[in-house]
Amino acid sequence: MECKQPSECAKLINTKGEKMKKEYCVAILGATGAVGTRMIQQLEKSKVPVGELKLLASKKSAGMVRKVLGRNIAIQEADENSFDAVDIVLASAGGTVSKKLLPAAVNAGAVCIDNSSEWRLHDDVPLVVPEVNADELEKHHGIIGNPNCSTIQMVVALEPIRRAFGVKKIVVSTYQAAGGAGQSAIDELQAETSAYVLREKMHPKILPTKFGAKHYPLAFNLLPQIDAFDENGYTKEELKMIYETKKILCGDKNSSDINVTATCVRVPVMIGHGESVYFETADSELKPPTANDIRELLRKSPGIVIQDDISEQLYPQPLTAEGKTETFVGRIRVDLENPRAFNMWIVADNLLKGAATNAVQIAEELIARELLQ
Amino acid sequence: MECKQPSECAKLINTKGEKMKKEYCVAILGATGAVGTRMIQQLEKSKVPVGELKLLASKKSAGMVRKVLGRNIAIQEADENSFDAVDIVLASAGGTVSKKLLPAAVNAGAVCIDNSSEWRLHDDVPLVVPEVNADELEKHHGIIGNPNCSTIQMVVALEPIRRAFGVKKIVVSTYQAAGGAGQSAIDELQAETSAYVLREKMHPKILPTKFGAKHYPLAFNLLPQIDAFDENGYTKEELKMIYETKKILCGDKNSSDINVTATCVRVPVMIGHGESVYFETADSELKPPTANDIRELLRKSPGIVIQDDISEQLYPQPLTAEGKTETFVGRIRVDLENPRAFNMWIVADNLLKGAATNAVQIAEELIARELLQ
Repeated sequence: MECKQPSECAKLINTKGEKMKKEYCVAILGATGAVGTRMIQQLEKSKVPVGELKLLASKKSAGMVRKVLGRNIAIQEADENSFDAVDIVLASAGGTVSKKLLPAAVNAGAVCIDNSSEWRLHDDVPLVVPEVNADELEKHHGIIGNPNCSTIQMVVALEPIRRAFGVKKIVVSTYQAAGGAGQSAIDELQAETSAYVLREKMHPKILPTKFGAKHYPLAFNLLPQIDAFDENGYTKEELKMIYETKKILCGDKNSSDINVTATCVRVPVMIGHGESVYFETADSELKPPTANDIRELLRKSPGIVIQDDISEQLYPQPLTAEGKTETFVGRIRVDLENPRAFNMWIVADNLLKGAATNAVQIAEELIARELLQ
Repeated sequence: MECKQPSECAKLINTKGEKMKKEYCVAILGATGAVGTRMIQQLEKSKVPVGELKLLASKKSAGMVRKVLGRNIAIQEADENSFDAVDIVLASAGGTVSKKLLPAAVNAGAVCIDNSSEWRLHDDVPLVVPEVNADELEKHHGIIGNPNCSTIQMVVALEPIRRAFGVKKIVVSTYQAAGGAGQSAIDELQAETSAYVLREKMHPKILPTKFGAKHYPLAFNLLPQIDAFDENGYTKEELKMIYETKKILCGDKNSSDINVTATCVRVPVMIGHGESVYFETADSELKPPTANDIRELLRKSPGIVIQDDISEQLYPQPLTAEGKTETFVGRIRVDLENPRAFNMWIVADNLLKGAATNAVQIAEELIARELLQ
């Protein structure tokens, strides 16, 4: 299905004098992946008035048909010419594809929301979590970065605290689900689990990274490697958490306003990342906040559900967060020695708020702010 | 099988004038549990010359027979009268049993190495990891605490660093296996896993705690609750890590020499705890250590195996640590902003070094130091 020209897409503009409303031509780049399929679902539930929808993927998926918004849509092979008359691209096809195709999409007049890490740290690419820094969208030049899954859920919880009390230090350890490495990693964990139950041998080929020389089972195991290693000993995933968090919270990926360090670990969970976050609020002459101050602050903050009642054994878990679009926060408690330091536990569906939902929320925000090109 | 009187147990004393050597009457209290069965295995492989072996458990296991050291030994019900002529008790039957029975064992002349948390923080109870603070054994009054599984593997790795460079702060997040909650939790995770594969409903009854009002599945999930909650918001497991670490590394459970905070999470792994440890070395006029300094220091430290080569994707994993008695350390790297802060990743078999092996090593040390009563 070809997108119509913009003038046609816009023909259903609300004529009652309400806020301008048109229909947009949206392309999903990487439409068959774990994130891409969820982008379609989230788009269907969103406030984005979709006029035409273009599903783009690699050659091997071309021709397959998906039923979306009551329409049967054939998947097309993505190339530089796929973006004529497209208003919004939601991209989740990996860094190589984004590097190659998004400039062509921007040249064709589209605004691209990219889930790969390719453009996130470029100076002229806003890196946006709408609850945190939607204003950054005003500065866009056609590409907007959708942050790393593990970064998104952490900054959603930390930004209200930073605004109210200041945050000077973050130590995060992640518990990341297989789904963060795509549908093939979910399939691999399922196959390994079945092999375990049947007492058969496991044959890992995907994790910890597809491109790495070695593969290890994730079933009943922990893999302290997500993405490739940098020569400084950190994984790229850990560096994403460090630099993206600084860029989102401080406006500068190299900011020294907040010290951030991270250890990222893959755990045998299908969907839903957990994060153990230690943070220190800013020095102040004021009395330090209590755990309850932080709990109540987050309870009224956007996109957050507080699950924090030890008398009820209530705390966030991946199995209860899966399929939800919010960020779940619990186990908020003050350090026993430093009254300005705290620990908390954050869980979100890494494929929804950590990817597809955040991207669609950015699209909604672009429309509300009339920031499409 | 009854233990003989001490004089009989000692009848094989080496008569050649070598270091005094006798055979000891050893009792395993909680002999049928996940730790107890491993205490038996580790005892068989140890340097402890076992004259008689007494297997003690609850009434329901009494009469069952175990083949140990080539002998068939019937399990006896444990009570206050079980310890006549016993030299060493290796106890792993829970806090209630230890509280009730160990004083009777001490009165009967035995030295007790207790794996429960019941006595660990008592002022006159040494809390010992032989690689770290074996000298504390000299002060014992009959009961010696075997530390918490997650504490043991962390202090094995941190003590050489503390000695060489000082440690002033520790932030640890744990990834703890089902096996830490006993064989019934391993069985529950296996049952839940089979149910998942067969698309059946899961029926959790053990985790997160047997005595809690609520139970949640661990399969493909994360449970940020290990043991009961204290009113300060920390779990007892987290408090064990904080106070036991201070007692072992600083000699005082309330020491402010090292700040420690902990978040403990149960993960769907059968055996083998992972730990993400952030630590800050002491302020100094000397140049800070490098990651390589720490790596090489730990490489030559007792009980540690360094698995830390990112070019080979080599790092500790539960599946490769299971069944091993050492503590595995990797992912050692300096904080990118604080040259005196580091992250590392520690894995050990929580039922071996985290419990049974450490207890048997304490017994060996007691014998070597002639510290039995």
